[in-house]
Amino acid sequence: MKAVILNCSLKNSSEVSNTDAMIHRVVDLYSQSGITCKVIRVVDFKVAFGNTSDEGEGDDWPLILAEIKDAQILILASPIWLGDKSSVCKMVIERIDGSTSEEDPNNGQPPLYNKVGGVLVTGNEDGAKKVCAEMLFSLNHSGCSIPPNAMAYWVGTAGPGPSYIEAGGDRHFFTNINIRSLVANTVYLAGLLRENPITTNLFEIGEKAKKESR
Amino acid sequence: MKAVILNCSLKNSSEVSNTDAMIHRVVDLYSQSGITCKVIRVVDFKVAFGNTSDEGEGDDWPLILAEIKDAQILILASPIWLGDKSSVCKMVIERIDGSTSEEDPNNGQPPLYNKVGGVLVTGNEDGAKKVCAEMLFSLNHSGCSIPPNAMAYWVGTAGPGPSYIEAGGDRHFFTNINIRSLVANTVYLAGLLRENPITTNLFEIGEKAKKESR
Amino acid sequence: MKAVILNCSLKNSSEVSNTDAMIHRVVDLYSQSGITCKVIRVVDFKVAFGNTSDEGEGDDWPLILAEIKDAQILILASPIWLGDKSSVCKMVIERIDGSTSEEDPNNGQPPLYNKVGGVLVTGNEDGAKKVCAEMLFSLNHSGCSIPPNAMAYWVGTAGPGPSYIEAGGDRHFFTNINIRSLVANTVYLAGLLRENPITTNLFEIGEKAKKESR
Amino acid sequence: MKAVILNCSLKNSSEVSNTDAMIHRVVDLYSQSGITCKVIRVVDFKVAFGNTSDEGEGDDWPLILAEIKDAQILILASPIWLGDKSSVCKMVIERIDGSTSEEDPNNGQPPLYNKVGGVLVTGNEDGAKKVCAEMLFSLNHSGCSIPPNAMAYWVGTAGPGPSYIEAGGDRHFFTNINIRSLVANTVYLAGLLRENPITTNLFEIGEKAKKESR
Repeated sequence: MKAVILNCSLKNSSEVSNTDAMIHRVVDLYSQSGITCKVIRVVDFKVAFGNTSDEGEGDDWPLILAEIKDAQILILASPIWLGDKSSVCKMVIERIDGSTSEEDPNNGQPPLYNKVGGVLVTGNEDGAKKVCAEMLFSLNHSGCSIPPNAMAYWVGTAGPGPSYIEAGGDRHFFTNINIRSLVANTVYLAGLLRENPITTNLFEIGEKAKKESR
Repeated sequence: MKAVILNCSLKNSSEVSNTDAMIHRVVDLYSQSGITCKVIRVVDFKVAFGNTSDEGEGDDWPLILAEIKDAQILILASPIWLGDKSSVCKMVIERIDGSTSEEDPNNGQPPLYNKVGGVLVTGNEDGAKKVCAEMLFSLNHSGCSIPPNAMAYWVGTAGPGPSYIEAGGDRHFFTNINIRSLVANTVYLAGLLRENPITTNLFEIGEKAKKESR
Repeated sequence: MKAVILNCSLKNSSEVSNTDAMIHRVVDLYSQSGITCKVIRVVDFKVAFGNTSDEGEGDDWPLILAEIKDAQILILASPIWLGDKSSVCKMVIERIDGSTSEEDPNNGQPPLYNKVGGVLVTGNEDGAKKVCAEMLFSLNHSGCSIPPNAMAYWVGTAGPGPSYIEAGGDRHFFTNINIRSLVANTVYLAGLLRENPITTNLFEIGEKAKKESR
Repeated sequence: MKAVILNCSLKNSSEVSNTDAMIHRVVDLYSQSGITCKVIRVVDFKVAFGNTSDEGEGDDWPLILAEIKDAQILILASPIWLGDKSSVCKMVIERIDGSTSEEDPNNGQPPLYNKVGGVLVTGNEDGAKKVCAEMLFSLNHSGCSIPPNAMAYWVGTAGPGPSYIEAGGDRHFFTNINIRSLVANTVYLAGLLRENPITTNLFEIGEKAKKESR
């Protein structure tokens, strides 16, 4: 199986990213479970603002979406800015949501159905659960299933201060438990859904709903 | 299998609840799938404010929690007030979260592990996705897995106006599709997890995390 | 001038409240500015679930609302539970929102117009800015004006841990700056609005809007 | 006085924007009150991702920030995507927040102190109050004061459907009341603060906070 991890840092790969440091731990654990990982720093690519799977010439999103479609696990990773996910993360959410109009001709399921989602968040302080909640919601809304413990984060005490790397977040017990649980449960559920894909036929449901509606 | 549906209306059963009207549709569909339903209007009970599984004398929450533990599917249903879930819904979330300290002695899993969560929301206007996102997050955080399309809602146009019953929300195509998808996918994933419970041992993960932490 | 501070702890006054400890610092500073303070632990009263100013027999909310109407500054204070404001806080928001239907016969303004709002939040970890944002929104939506720096909070590092009192949050520089700014700016704006109440006539605006609408 | 209105549509000015249609109504009303308006479609400019006031060569944000600094009223306007503000809006919030490090040498106040904020939101359905709440929070956090009724929005019934222009949102009573109240109250409070700027000295507050902290 394969996991795609999207780093939604505002900074490109020429700069150090705290979120990337947490991602590395997750990659190590996935590798130990035999999962291949593809880590993508989104701002290294030219992703267009938009809400479709392809915004035309100069839009690199189709390259990233192809990687997502090829994976069983999708992890969104975002820093916290002003208590919120990054604008890059929101841009990614808008583009992923655009994929829901690509329905499987057999059952109407969008491309992320039968994939499993999880989220990683780093910030120097406050905001992680809000960011995790919104990212998990968007992944779920676009088709992913979410196992328990599908989130891991590190934040420090209120106010300005060191972030994950400088503060030694990689040795923070609570964060490490959550990272390990996230990996174990996303792998477990992804395996289960690969063997037993969701059988729901969204076209048939649409037909039934049409009959009972105006 | 069994589904527990918690109606978090501010009003008790002596009053008409729009949320209840939507719940009835879900109950019908679950019944057609052979799922037994238990619908609970939370404010009919004396639920104490708190964050444990039992706040002592006069607290009816243990009765409700027993029903939840006996089910495979847990649906939170809330009206929208000022763009947000109801206070009763938040009270329920706090009490459900209290259950996470009751760990299975074999693997450390809290009681809601291997259950599946979903949410229903009604309001006269605006707020459904925020309310759904927060309710799904809390269910997931307390142990539930979330399949795709685990939410259904009805809201009207901006501003004061009729709610679900008066507006004929039961004949709204979009809402009906989502209700049917929610039922199909919660049943599917709950069946899958009943046959294949999550094998993650949270105690072992805790031990490993301890070794790599300060 | 007078400030009402509503402590939305889940625990009544027989128990220690971290939120209360932060409130005491705010009360000290208001007193130094000549502002009289009324601190109310909401769960000491029997406040009914509802969305009006008076839910009838046995509802203590009218007592609290009378205090609010008599003040120029309204401070909501909440602990964080699962990254969110307390259910008691949401119950208070629902009741305050109920007051907006009590329009001034001269200009249609609800009772909280020309009052100033602010918020205080304590938690052992993560969630403060989300909670502040939602509380400030609800105060503003019910009529309060919000000056800059109208919020103060303390939270610790990710995961379980000590809260405000035990962690010595009262000596946390960032939190103390925010507490002092909150007091200074709420006092300043409340004074300004007392001398210069908002002149907007909401009835006249309604008439004009009616003419341009269907 | 001057108002700057930032349209955070994902589409540039070559495309029709529902948010822009609502903005035009606001501009008309501001003009009637003698307020000069500057409307900026953000994606017409090359704004860099980042969290400072100037991200260097090729970053157009300094041009927009100069307009904001020159105004007394700042209005953020955003469409809704998946129940959330646009990524462009979040990018703008990150850049505005970057300005808070530019302290007035006399009193430590950031550049948006003594300005007044408001928000406009359009979407085909659901999400307005969440989006308004987060935009108002960010404006307030960056220094703006927020009067009552500082928000106006239009959304339709649950699910896909026409947006503001096609649905005739410009003749929707609730939305029109809110637009008029927003204009009246932002003008009132901006005038008040121009005549009576906030006197809080954030440097002095910092000194006092330092003494009582570790």
